[in-house]
Amino acid sequence: MSEWPTDHVGLETLPFDECLRLLGSVPVGRIGFINDGEVTVLPVNHAVDGQDVIFHVAYGSKLAAAAKQEAVAFEADSYDPASKSGWSVLVTGWAELVLEDAEISHLNELGLHPWATRVDKPYWIRIRPTSITGRRIPA
Amino acid sequence: MSEWPTDHVGLETLPFDECLRLLGSVPVGRIGFINDGEVTVLPVNHAVDGQDVIFHVAYGSKLAAAAKQEAVAFEADSYDPASKSGWSVLVTGWAELVLEDAEISHLNELGLHPWATRVDKPYWIRIRPTSITGRRIPA
Repeated sequence: MSEWPTDHVGLETLPFDECLRLLGSVPVGRIGFINDGEVTVLPVNHAVDGQDVIFHVAYGSKLAAAAKQEAVAFEADSYDPASKSGWSVLVTGWAELVLEDAEISHLNELGLHPWATRVDKPYWIRIRPTSITGRRIPA
Repeated sequence: MSEWPTDHVGLETLPFDECLRLLGSVPVGRIGFINDGEVTVLPVNHAVDGQDVIFHVAYGSKLAAAAKQEAVAFEADSYDPASKSGWSVLVTGWAELVLEDAEISHLNELGLHPWATRVDKPYWIRIRPTSITGRRIPA
């Protein structure tokens, strides 16, 4: 059953608040950015802080390159193979390395623990959205 | 337990055959491409044909723009929140619209049915990989 208006290809267009709620409802999303001139998409475990997406990165990782970017994309989704339904949310925005001590303390208190526990991930990256959009295939 | 060698941030580096097997083991991945000058990441339900990733696109959709691209990325992953483990595979390559009748017949026989069933998806896109790499966080 459709709860939201549909777009020209028949997918439901999710309102902003629903996009934010869904973004925070899954532990893993994917960041898309340009690395050495190529589009790259890598998974990160993330959290939502206000309207921003935040995640840890390891020193020297490919992901660290995302913080040097002008513009990045962040995607989260969830789907049910049985009903062939699902939703996705796309954030486009600006990635930045978090440098302020007060902000780092605040983010550390959100309780987001990196999954790769053997890996040092001393940096936080914050994505400041310029747009947040979402679509849903109803069940 | 580690089954494969680890990279400099402690993630297991998956061999090529394992990457291909994992790519085909999940019904949904995400394509990253440049749309109107911005990095865009959108989910698609896909299949693997040989070493290529294939999926349907709807006429007029954002995804149709991917077929006009030089280079795209395709990412698939799976993770277990309980053990904080998971894997991801990243394909970089060239997207192309499938135009040959014989090839379209072949792809139609793979039995990949688009999930958004109310949406016409008359086109196949094939990604010809230039690289396929994968990482795993062991449980």
